[in-house]
Amino acid sequence: MNGSLFIAAIAGVGLSAGAALAAQSQDKPEVLVKQRQSAMVLQAKYFGPLLGMLRGSVQYDAQVVARNSGYLDALSTMPWDGFAESTKGEKSRALPAIWTDAAKFQSSVDELQSAINALAVASGRGNEQEARTAIDRLGAICRGCHDDFRSK
Amino acid sequence: MNGSLFIAAIAGVGLSAGAALAAQSQDKPEVLVKQRQSAMVLQAKYFGPLLGMLRGSVQYDAQVVARNSGYLDALSTMPWDGFAESTKGEKSRALPAIWTDAAKFQSSVDELQSAINALAVASGRGNEQEARTAIDRLGAICRGCHDDFRSK
Repeated sequence: MNGSLFIAAIAGVGLSAGAALAAQSQDKPEVLVKQRQSAMVLQAKYFGPLLGMLRGSVQYDAQVVARNSGYLDALSTMPWDGFAESTKGEKSRALPAIWTDAAKFQSSVDELQSAINALAVASGRGNEQEARTAIDRLGAICRGCHDDFRSK
Repeated sequence: MNGSLFIAAIAGVGLSAGAALAAQSQDKPEVLVKQRQSAMVLQAKYFGPLLGMLRGSVQYDAQVVARNSGYLDALSTMPWDGFAESTKGEKSRALPAIWTDAAKFQSSVDELQSAINALAVASGRGNEQEARTAIDRLGAICRGCHDDFRSK
């Protein structure tokens, strides 16, 4: 896979977070929560095997790394408009810090997307060592954001 | 967006359904159900506004059509390995015909993906009329497959 090509294809049709939020703002809070949780479930589905490869419980497979990186590149743009203020009262593991420290939350999202881009580029180049480093960094970003913004 | 470029980027990292199924076969049935339902929820999230545009309840926005088509192109590959035989006993709206008429189910999946590719190409060309036709066809395919394979 040509990672940068893939990213360009995605980025070329990207909307600003504000536009996406506006487009979603009429959705019911419970629907927004379900949608954002769905995006998280699928990120875990496609990131889990990569973590397994990093840790040695799954054999490294460059084709799976490339495919999953592409999926993650798309999926990692999908949860965030689901964290509308209207969802604050819904049952979920989302912590209030998402809204009280929105700048830090946004910065974590940016960091995640940058790490996924790096992974997509590395796997597109077929560079296993670079991909492993990117997977490791991505795992740390997931954990850090969950520590700050998701209840145990 | 260049639809065919996007499709090429996705297709270039595609795995056969069989390989994907094998990769997932060790997952617990309840996890597979949750993952496939998540992919369905996100398909609805990104297809819903397009149906709204077709019906006139949402203003046509070529940028949203292009972005959502790209998302759907990826998302429409994600649910199917979740319909493993191991999930037959799980609570869900999946009908037994998924497994007793697997060839027809697979053919519906193929039809869906072909219609999404057509939509991505049309929206990539910026051809609104073609895109509207593709959205209409896609809606019919969703409904047909749900009629056959999902309980009311």
